[in-house]
Parts: sequence; structure tokens; C-alpha cells
Amino acid sequence: MNTIRTNILASVTFAMAMFSPHTPALAQNSDVSRDAKSNLSKRDNEEKIRLTRASAFYWRVTFNNPPLNIIGPSEVNELTRILGQIEADPDVKVVVIDSAVPGYFVAHYDLLKPLEESTGMKPGPTGMHPVPDFMVRLSRLKAVTIALIRGRASGIGSEIALAADMRFASREMAVLSQFEVGAGFVPGGGPMARLPRLVGRGRAIEILLGADGFNGELAERYGYVNRTLPDAELDDFVDALAMRIASFDKEAIADTKRLVDLASLPPDTEMQQGWEAFITSVQRPAAQARVKALVNHGLQKAGDLERNLGDYTARFGQ
Amino acid sequence: MNTIRTNILASVTFAMAMFSPHTPALAQNSDVSRDAKSNLSKRDNEEKIRLTRASAFYWRVTFNNPPLNIIGPSEVNELTRILGQIEADPDVKVVVIDSAVPGYFVAHYDLLKPLEESTGMKPGPTGMHPVPDFMVRLSRLKAVTIALIRGRASGIGSEIALAADMRFASREMAVLSQFEVGAGFVPGGGPMARLPRLVGRGRAIEILLGADGFNGELAERYGYVNRTLPDAELDDFVDALAMRIASFDKEAIADTKRLVDLASLPPDTEMQQGWEAFITSVQRPAAQARVKALVNHGLQKAGDLERNLGDYTARFGQ
Amino acid sequence: MNTIRTNILASVTFAMAMFSPHTPALAQNSDVSRDAKSNLSKRDNEEKIRLTRASAFYWRVTFNNPPLNIIGPSEVNELTRILGQIEADPDVKVVVIDSAVPGYFVAHYDLLKPLEESTGMKPGPTGMHPVPDFMVRLSRLKAVTIALIRGRASGIGSEIALAADMRFASREMAVLSQFEVGAGFVPGGGPMARLPRLVGRGRAIEILLGADGFNGELAERYGYVNRTLPDAELDDFVDALAMRIASFDKEAIADTKRLVDLASLPPDTEMQQGWEAFITSVQRPAAQARVKALVNHGLQKAGDLERNLGDYTARFGQ
Repeated sequence: MNTIRTNILASVTFAMAMFSPHTPALAQNSDVSRDAKSNLSKRDNEEKIRLTRASAFYWRVTFNNPPLNIIGPSEVNELTRILGQIEADPDVKVVVIDSAVPGYFVAHYDLLKPLEESTGMKPGPTGMHPVPDFMVRLSRLKAVTIALIRGRASGIGSEIALAADMRFASREMAVLSQFEVGAGFVPGGGPMARLPRLVGRGRAIEILLGADGFNGELAERYGYVNRTLPDAELDDFVDALAMRIASFDKEAIADTKRLVDLASLPPDTEMQQGWEAFITSVQRPAAQARVKALVNHGLQKAGDLERNLGDYTARFGQ
Repeated sequence: MNTIRTNILASVTFAMAMFSPHTPALAQNSDVSRDAKSNLSKRDNEEKIRLTRASAFYWRVTFNNPPLNIIGPSEVNELTRILGQIEADPDVKVVVIDSAVPGYFVAHYDLLKPLEESTGMKPGPTGMHPVPDFMVRLSRLKAVTIALIRGRASGIGSEIALAADMRFASREMAVLSQFEVGAGFVPGGGPMARLPRLVGRGRAIEILLGADGFNGELAERYGYVNRTLPDAELDDFVDALAMRIASFDKEAIADTKRLVDLASLPPDTEMQQGWEAFITSVQRPAAQARVKALVNHGLQKAGDLERNLGDYTARFGQ
Repeated sequence: MNTIRTNILASVTFAMAMFSPHTPALAQNSDVSRDAKSNLSKRDNEEKIRLTRASAFYWRVTFNNPPLNIIGPSEVNELTRILGQIEADPDVKVVVIDSAVPGYFVAHYDLLKPLEESTGMKPGPTGMHPVPDFMVRLSRLKAVTIALIRGRASGIGSEIALAADMRFASREMAVLSQFEVGAGFVPGGGPMARLPRLVGRGRAIEILLGADGFNGELAERYGYVNRTLPDAELDDFVDALAMRIASFDKEAIADTKRLVDLASLPPDTEMQQGWEAFITSVQRPAAQARVKALVNHGLQKAGDLERNLGDYTARFGQ
């Protein structure tokens, strides 16, 4: 039974036991989790998040954690370490964030890890948990950040894209979503604070409470991304924009961005409240039951469920 | 002469008398008003606003007050009563607001009733007049609200749609407008507070000060509605979205929405100021003269003027 | 060497001297500046900014300073004088701002004048420098303002359009841009405060830090302008809207706009900070070098560089 502790459901084992005392699904979950672990260990020497430098001024952060670019506590630590390098560098002016994994920008946060691995992380320099800490520091970088979205960007994937300064998406391949409410919990990386300011209250509520996927065309129409481009043109477009910004003066960039930040960034307290609401909500029996059902049907494995997450979340409720 | 008191023009009888001592138009107005009253009494046993429950989780509020779905003090009381039921219900998660009247979501506020009937209403739980009280409480519901707009949504019709969480409109049939400035007065239900936050200052000023109708296509392009759909697909689309949300966890919905509210709702004081500006402005001679001219040409009767309100408002000014 | 003092580069002569002691480019610049001056003197009797009255209610402000509608300290004074007339007039309800110069709404601020001519200007009634003072007073007019954009609106041209209440652009002819970061300095007329509130943070950062031109179609898609119309229809559309608003009641317009202002105008402090950041940044060696290179290649002369400003700014950096 201690294998239960290998996924995020574990922290509410007691509560769950009241609903499903035999927890057959959890046993199956832990098999999934063990498989994932052995896959991970094969890849331990590879970088799950790659930092490359096109030049001193133009860097690239690439998610490279197949098959889904799941982000869990260790990936958050890795992202935070890279963020520190960007903050400390005297030259970098522009950072593109993209994925090397076909079909996925970032699927979502790791729901198979014990919750304590997340809640037990040491606060970052802002005093907040490393997830909201990463999100607010990413937005406040002096360098300009561009999310290049090819494939699915759900949950924390969408939240990282929203924390970046700009978002460009593939017309054919991008699907953005905040699927969390469909899985029974509150998004944790700040989209309640960011989306209403970006796309207006009405469309923000549709994204967050409809909790379904938005393709590139609709994401552009709603302002969820800056622009959607034909997949064949996306890389060149983003590269040209990044090189253009890289040619500008670093101080002019930073001073201009600082004033945009003043006019547009949500207060850190709203980001903190979002994280707390996530932690509280994910421990509720309703969330646990929904996550368990999703895990049982293939969550966090390459396959149909992850490719159609919005469809599956609507199947396991009342 | 006491028949004058049967419409909203009455409260400034003295001021009007200085401009048009014989008030032939007002006499005509009161005929109109009497006709309207006798029509209303025929329908007293029917519900002018219907509450139906598709399920314990999914409710529907339907305007059913032909021919125009005019909303006056008694309809505001009825809406507030229904709102109380939604607030008190432990299960409801999503509420669709629509109309059973062809051509109209809601035409506008009742301009033929004495102003005292509106100003004399008892404040609601927020301490504000029942109109702004209803608007802010509608936005703060734990349940998600969706306005389904087929036909004209002007004045308070547009304001109720804006107070709802999402808006979906018929491509062929929807026309949204804040016509009030064209009739000489300030909108009272909060669009000055909501529209700039939803569509940006430039388009908000066009809507409010151009004061003309916006069809479904343009309303979507401006972000006035979430999306516009072909009329034949609108009902199914909204129904599917509502059923989807109804399948989610109520606490996850409410906790997520509360944080969206924090990021996007205008302060109540702005809603209150809008209501006060409406009451002050509608009593001015300029507003009285314009409303009188509109009444004389068919305001609040099914017909050409109501179908082309934006055209008519531009005819009676300087 | 004192000819250097005829352009905005002069205030950092000492700093520049350390980088390019022979300043051959500056000598060339001053030739350019002398040519410009003699062109100006030919036109001294003409109005560079025309105020016309279509009626007591509907006025028009027309930039008429060929070939580029450059705005420098004297044009700011002229604009402020006209603004005072609009503020003081008891009747005017709507003001259209347009250009009589083919190809240009307003190219940008005068970069060939000594910086002291700008910094030495007396503060306006808001206590701020006349540039931010003009911008915030333009937005707070009781009258409604409409920018009709045919041709290029860059830098202060874009900023005046953003300070106006609405913007309508020519599909074929309009190009909006905030090119400043590409020239090494921070925009001074408030777009960091306005654009994120108008088009959202992501698109605002693309406009400000991509610093390239946005044609009419894209400007509409981003919400940078209200709407883009075929060039042949633009004048009639704006004229009809202006006449419509001119027919409405002045008090209803002013009271409605005041509440929109409350919900949407940035705090004056953000406008002031933008101006200060411009003044600081334009004096840095990096900005001086970039401006000098642009001047050497044709800045502020009718020709290829001004028509393709976004392309040229990317050529002279690192």
C-alpha cells in the first residue's frame, strides 16, 4: 500500500479510503508511476530542459522531457536555476521558450508525484513557493521572453506561456488550455490573475471554467496568444523577431519593459492566492476522485487521453 | 394632466413645462402608456421572467415579456428574487440567461413608468439601488452565468449580458447596443465600468458614445461577446458548454471564479456612480425632450423605431 | 562645431566625443538640420496644425507640416494652444484629428532639435512637461476625440492616436508603430501606460519591444485601432460617426466619458514616468549612436528610411 505514496493522490489517502476502500485504481496508478520513474532514470544524463545560446544576446530554453514535457518539482527547480542564469547575465536581451517534444509544449504539472514533494519545496527569492516565484520572476525579467507554442500547452504549460512576454502559436499544432477545473481543482500558476487582464473577463472565464482546449486560430481571436502562424512559418517568424530584439539596446528594452510591467502585471498576492487555492483544492475528495479517474484512463501517458484532455475531463463528473 | 405621471417624463413636468407648455407629446405618451398597461394586465398570470431547471446543476432564466422584454421596476424585483434563489441553492453550477421573445434579448429599461417607481425602490443587500445591486450580485454568483443573445440587447439588456460571465451571440440575429447617450442620458447599469475593462477604452467609447447597434460579427471582433455563432448552432453550443460546466466540481468552479473576480470586477463604487449619473441625467430637459420625441415615434412599441433604435436616436438632436 | 547644437544629439556632445571624436556624422546631420530649417522658414506663414470647425459641435485638427508632420517643441505648443480652445469651448462635442500630408499621420518627434528646447519647456496645467501634459489633457477632454489614421503614425504620432478616444485606420495606407526602442530610447508619450490596458500585455510588448510597423489589418486585429476601413470609405465613416456624436447631448457625452475615464485612464504618474524615461534614455551613448546612424541614412527626410523606419532601426545595433 505504500506505493500509493508515489503519486499526488497520496496526501489524501485517508479521505479517499472512505470513498473507495480497495483503491484498485490507485494500485494501477502506482504502476503507471513506477513505469514513468524507470523511463526517467534511463534519461537521467540528458537535460530535460535545455538552455542554448544562439548568441550572447539571444538564448533559448527548450522543454525536452518526452513524451509529454510534464513539469514536476525537479523540473521547477531546473527552470528556476535557468531563470537565475538569465537574471544574472549582463548581456542576454531575448529568450525564446519552446519544446523539442512533438505534440507538446508542456502537457501539465506532474500529478503522479506525492503532493509533499511540491508543498515541501523551499520558497524562492520572492518569498513565495517556487511555482508562483518562478512565474512572477519570469514576467519581470529585464530580457524579453517569447513562448513558441507548437503542440499542447495545458495547465502549467499555458501558465508558463502566459508568464512569458509574448506568445506565438502554430496554426495547425497548438492547443492551449487550462484544464484544471475539469479535473476538479483550481489552476495554480496564476491564470486567474493573468487571463482577465489579457483577454477580458468573459473570455478568461470561458478558458478557465469551460476548461477545454483552444486551437491556434481561436487562441489568437481571443488574444490568448499574440498571433497564430502557419506551422511552416512559425520558427522563422519567432527567430526573426528574437534577432530583431537582440539587436536593440539592452537598457532601452529593460526601461521600457519596466513601465509595461507597472501597467500590466498582476500583484504578486494574486499569484500567491492562486497557488494556495490550487493546493487546497487538489486535496479535496472531489479532485482526488477526478484525478484518479483520469489516471486510470491514461493521464500522464502518451496517448488518447492526453491528446484529448478536455473531452476526458467532462466524462468523470456528475 | 395627472396622466403625465404615468411615464418617466413625469418627474420633470415642471422643467418640461418651460419648454413645451402644452405637452401634446406627453398626452400622446400617456396613451401609449395606458395601452401598455392594459396589455400587461392581460398577461398578469404569466411569468414575465421564467426560471427553469434543466437539472439540479444547470438552470435557465428566460425573458418572456413580449413584445420587447422591457425591464422596469417590477421585472427588476423579479430578477432579484430569482437571483436570491440562485445564490441560496447548494447545487446550481451554471445558469443560462436567454429570451423566449423573437427579435429581442431585452430592448431596454422601461421609460414609460414614473421615475419615482425606480428611485423609490428599496436598496438591495449591497446597500445599492436594486439595479446596480442586481448587476454586481449577478457577477459575483458562485455559479457561472452565460448570456445567450438572439435579437436586440440594448441598454439594460446589454448591461445584464455584460454582468453575466460569458456572452454568446447569434451571427444573424444579435444586435447589442448602449443607446442611452443617443437618447440624452447616461447608461445606468454599469457599462462604463465594464466595457473598458472588457474591450479596451477605444472600443468602449465607440460603443458608449457612438451609441449605435453592434451586430454579432462586430461584437465578437470587439470582444463585446465571447463568440458569435451561426444562429442554427447557437443553442446547441451554449447548451453543450453549460452541460460541460455542470459536470464539474462546484467548489473548483467557485474558487476559480472568485480569483477571476478579484482580477476583473469593477469596484462597486463605479457601478453606484453609473446609476447616480443615470438618475441625474435622465431628469435633464435635454434627455426629457429626446425621450419624448422617441416615445412619440414609437419607443417601447413593437415596430420600426425599436428595431432601428440607433438610427432614430440620431434624428432628434442638434 | 557649434552646428552640432542644432540637433537633439547635442546635449551629449561630450559623451559622444569619447566615442567618435571627429563626429563626421554630426556634421552631416547639421546639414540636414539646416536644410530642414530653410524649408520650414518658407512655410512660416502657413499653419502647421490647422483647426477647422465643421460646425459649432464638430471640430477638426489637421496636421499639415509636410513632408512628415514632424512634431517638435513648437508644434507641441501649437497643439496645446488648440487643446486649450477645445477645453474652453462650451459647444464642441467631437474633434477629429487627421493629416493633410500624404503618407503620414505623424512621423515622430523632432530628433534634430536640441534636447534643451524640449526639456526647457514650461510645465502645463497638470504640472507635467507639455508633452505628457498634452497627452493626459487630450484624453480627459469632455469632447470625444477620433484619430483618423491614413499613413504612418509612429512615435508621438502613435501616442497622440492612443491619447485620442478612438482610432480608425486606412486598410491600405495606415502603419502604426512605436519605433523608439529600435532607435535606442524609451517612448516618451505614454504608450507603456496605454497599450497594455488597450491590447493586453502580450501584444503591447510586441508593439513596444518589437518596435516595428503594424499595418491597418494587424492593428485592428490587435485592438491597436478600433477598426480598419478600406481607404475609400474611411473619411465618410469617420465623418458620419462624428456627425452622429455631434447630434447628441453634450452633458450626456461628458458624464458618460468621465466614468469611462475613471475605469480606463492610466494614472498621470505613469505618463510622467514614461516622459522621464524618454529624457534619460535619449541622452545615453547607445541612443545617440543609433539616432546618429538613422539621421545619416535619412531620418526626418522624406524618403526610404522614413517609409521603412522599422527595417532601418534593426540595422544599426549589435
